[in-house]
Amino acid sequence: MDPYIHKVQYYETDRMQITHHSNYIRFMEEARVGFLEQIGWGYDRLEAEGISSPVVSVSCEYKKSTTFADRIEIMVRVTDVTPVRLHLAYTMTVDGAVVCTAESSHCFLNENGRPTSLKKQKPEFYDCLLRLCEGEA
Amino acid sequence: MDPYIHKVQYYETDRMQITHHSNYIRFMEEARVGFLEQIGWGYDRLEAEGISSPVVSVSCEYKKSTTFADRIEIMVRVTDVTPVRLHLAYTMTVDGAVVCTAESSHCFLNENGRPTSLKKQKPEFYDCLLRLCEGEA
Amino acid sequence: MDPYIHKVQYYETDRMQITHHSNYIRFMEEARVGFLEQIGWGYDRLEAEGISSPVVSVSCEYKKSTTFADRIEIMVRVTDVTPVRLHLAYTMTVDGAVVCTAESSHCFLNENGRPTSLKKQKPEFYDCLLRLCEGEA
Amino acid sequence: MDPYIHKVQYYETDRMQITHHSNYIRFMEEARVGFLEQIGWGYDRLEAEGISSPVVSVSCEYKKSTTFADRIEIMVRVTDVTPVRLHLAYTMTVDGAVVCTAESSHCFLNENGRPTSLKKQKPEFYDCLLRLCEGEA
Repeated sequence: MDPYIHKVQYYETDRMQITHHSNYIRFMEEARVGFLEQIGWGYDRLEAEGISSPVVSVSCEYKKSTTFADRIEIMVRVTDVTPVRLHLAYTMTVDGAVVCTAESSHCFLNENGRPTSLKKQKPEFYDCLLRLCEGEA
Repeated sequence: MDPYIHKVQYYETDRMQITHHSNYIRFMEEARVGFLEQIGWGYDRLEAEGISSPVVSVSCEYKKSTTFADRIEIMVRVTDVTPVRLHLAYTMTVDGAVVCTAESSHCFLNENGRPTSLKKQKPEFYDCLLRLCEGEA
Repeated sequence: MDPYIHKVQYYETDRMQITHHSNYIRFMEEARVGFLEQIGWGYDRLEAEGISSPVVSVSCEYKKSTTFADRIEIMVRVTDVTPVRLHLAYTMTVDGAVVCTAESSHCFLNENGRPTSLKKQKPEFYDCLLRLCEGEA
Repeated sequence: MDPYIHKVQYYETDRMQITHHSNYIRFMEEARVGFLEQIGWGYDRLEAEGISSPVVSVSCEYKKSTTFADRIEIMVRVTDVTPVRLHLAYTMTVDGAVVCTAESSHCFLNENGRPTSLKKQKPEFYDCLLRLCEGEA
């Protein structure tokens, strides 16, 4: 799996001259989009197949600050998947040093926007996530 | 007409320790929403009546920098209105000193998302804007 | 303690037509700034006294979606304070319904940007936080 | 000169399901940073040489909407340069269709943050911009 690269923009820095902490939540989304594409379940396919996966929780630990022009490498892993929840973990590094670790959880909605079992609704996607998760063990 | 007040947030500042210039475009939107509400044509009413008014252009002149915790007062004026275009001007001040002047232009879309003549589609709103505009003369 | 009010802006919504989840991290900062002001330790005073308190971690649970023009009430509580860490919790409601619960942790830096013991560096502030925390019990 | 590529992020879209108009001002900054790097005067060099070039005005005409996952190509041109002002123009396209045209103006500050003549302060940079501008004629 290729890491996702985010180059920190000037407008992402703040008065402390570092990347504002809220932006890492956005970097997680960018990396997640890239990850889903890499595993063959990009947003366009999910949308076409009538499934969406909103964020139900996020957490972020800030280890080292970053700033304008830093090149953040983000690795995404599936840490757990059940028929109704997907758990992802993120490791962000700059030049090999960890700057942030993070997690997000997601539910699954069908095309009517109702919570659904991914296992029933889209078993190939569920199996794909399960295999990636088992790869973690 | 009451000015709209925006208190600059920490996350709106940048590495130069001032409010990032892109945020003023957002302050314009905030002030515009407040202005439309004050004249009795808030977003909820516009939406209910099936009219929307997307931005077709913006311009901004930055006169003085602002920063975290500054209290920006924004006055909005109708500078011109035609059946198909609305032109607004914005003056932003902090403690009476002008920090930014700006303009935006808007078209009108009907509920099918197609360009429409506001004069035909929603004459009361058109007349309301026209009166505010004439007030400028 | 008064709740902090954030009115959701149009530019804070996303393609799913709800407030983008990353923005809640920013609402937390807004509420924190207001909270510190209310307890007499606003950013300007902290800055003047040479102390800062960067975010070391955040977490957020999204309970219900919100959208443009929603009025989010945010209550901030001190859940724990040690000489080197401050833990805050946030409850966000719209019309009485919880939309998001969140937490943040903070360290303390002295005027040279070095980690410091708040208890030694600024005992009145430490005691103030301690009292607010005990009030939780 | 290579175009700068910005891939629209999910968090850059709004409730109308299109890229929020304020973000184009940020795309301009991204493209400008890339442009300055390409001509050999990247932000790190400018900073090292004690020169900065804040935005004094921006304008933007929105021609077509874009949305999540669109790949915006941005070309930057020098339209005018004087000892105290730099004028840039931007053309943004998606699949060859123009989605936005924009302009920005910049002044020059020396290391003390005071307005300065670029021609006197950093003649090589001034000449470089002048040559690029003449290329426009």
